[in-house]
Amino acid sequence: MGSSGGPPPLSLSILGVEPMDEFIKEIADWVHFQIMNAPPDLLQGKGGKIEVEAKVGLLRDTRTSQRLMLPVLVESIIAPEYAKGDMRFESNMSMQQHKHFNLRLNDLKLSSSQPGFPASPLGYMHLRLTDSFYPSEDKEKIRVTKDTNTQEVVECLRKIRLGDLNIYSPKRAVDWRVSVNIEVPVPHPIGSPTHSRKKDRLSYTHEEFSIDLTQVTSQTQSGAPELLHELELEFARPDMLVAAAARRGDPSLPELERSVFDELIRAFVNNARILVRNAD
Amino acid sequence: MGSSGGPPPLSLSILGVEPMDEFIKEIADWVHFQIMNAPPDLLQGKGGKIEVEAKVGLLRDTRTSQRLMLPVLVESIIAPEYAKGDMRFESNMSMQQHKHFNLRLNDLKLSSSQPGFPASPLGYMHLRLTDSFYPSEDKEKIRVTKDTNTQEVVECLRKIRLGDLNIYSPKRAVDWRVSVNIEVPVPHPIGSPTHSRKKDRLSYTHEEFSIDLTQVTSQTQSGAPELLHELELEFARPDMLVAAAARRGDPSLPELERSVFDELIRAFVNNARILVRNAD
Repeated sequence: MGSSGGPPPLSLSILGVEPMDEFIKEIADWVHFQIMNAPPDLLQGKGGKIEVEAKVGLLRDTRTSQRLMLPVLVESIIAPEYAKGDMRFESNMSMQQHKHFNLRLNDLKLSSSQPGFPASPLGYMHLRLTDSFYPSEDKEKIRVTKDTNTQEVVECLRKIRLGDLNIYSPKRAVDWRVSVNIEVPVPHPIGSPTHSRKKDRLSYTHEEFSIDLTQVTSQTQSGAPELLHELELEFARPDMLVAAAARRGDPSLPELERSVFDELIRAFVNNARILVRNAD
Repeated sequence: MGSSGGPPPLSLSILGVEPMDEFIKEIADWVHFQIMNAPPDLLQGKGGKIEVEAKVGLLRDTRTSQRLMLPVLVESIIAPEYAKGDMRFESNMSMQQHKHFNLRLNDLKLSSSQPGFPASPLGYMHLRLTDSFYPSEDKEKIRVTKDTNTQEVVECLRKIRLGDLNIYSPKRAVDWRVSVNIEVPVPHPIGSPTHSRKKDRLSYTHEEFSIDLTQVTSQTQSGAPELLHELELEFARPDMLVAAAARRGDPSLPELERSVFDELIRAFVNNARILVRNAD
């Protein structure tokens, strides 16, 4: 140590750089695989759009219905074969947690519009939507979404789940799940919906992402209405993500361009981690 | 998207910064706790020195002796209560793996001394040591280490284990373990050693760390000699780490000074991750 008493300069590692984040890399590889292996007939053939989203909620042990307990201290990705049988993901939180997220996101919207904030400002929309579900010839039901106030049809689609990756987060109040879906537009169905739900959504937007904080009231033909509180982080422009996936690692492209996909997933995971750590 | 066709600038997150690495933070908190709660009578009273090291090896299921299998896809820290009963850590690797590390570290020593390398150059020493173990009145045996060539006594100490943290690393060929010990110097024991071992050590040094690649030949009074291959990463100046631990988060100090401990642990974990990822 020098006479100043301070520590000498410290490199990030023996290589001089931070090693790659194994967790982010695993999610990037998985999302990339899901996108590149999506059924082409649903995409080009039927005009389907890829959807990549992270939902905040709880992983529950299938037998006990208690929150999942694994013998690890920090966040990790659940092996898919384990996720199939022994656990389920519940996309829900308490009204209190929902309110806390609302306050934190409103604070962030305000501070992000101040000069000197290190990222772009958040945008904000308040949406009131009604989903009605209709039977279809396929496995998936058809979802018709209307603007609750104007009753205009916003979208009419069939949503096909391609895969889920579950994130166990024992240090936090919530777990999370990454999902890749295809949304295929379909003609408006005839007949009656089997059930419907009303969504009161606070939609925050930031660069390539939207963060949707939604109160969902479900109404089935029989039974009392069910109230759920959801938080989703979603790529706002899936076409751009899909184009970046196709260019990932292409050696004929400049480094900056072939790394766009990984940088998008890095920001996605960073945002999901920040949301999860702010759950109370 | 602009007319250039390239993606717009992307912030690291909605906060504009990378969220903290939960894994590194957990290890930093744990090492800090071990240091701050080390028995003072062994430190000030008996001149003991803290040792913080990471060993590369395999976590094995106690019942099957197979490598541990947990239902997670990426590295995580094993909960201590699980580590106590269901698994053990084996500080060993194949001769082939040992040779591979030797080649990689020699390559790095060479490239790190070239102009333009982003970190300091590695140092290197070849050590041949003999450890002899003597019974003592305490739980721990006394270890006398001699230079094998000159037979000079290098150190004579009792090593007290304070704690271990085990890292499961399913994507890699090896797992690892962080240990905090106290090494208390003692007078040379009288009588005969119960057993001894010879260490052929390639010791690489980098800034605050030493990386020891060691071939250990153990000889007990009965039985054939046992050959082990070990890889350890260790803080070279534990006094400096202990001083940084005491200043961690002290609000009366400038930010740079109170974050020294966390920056040291970050470099330690980065180096351990790099070593583990280079296991073949």
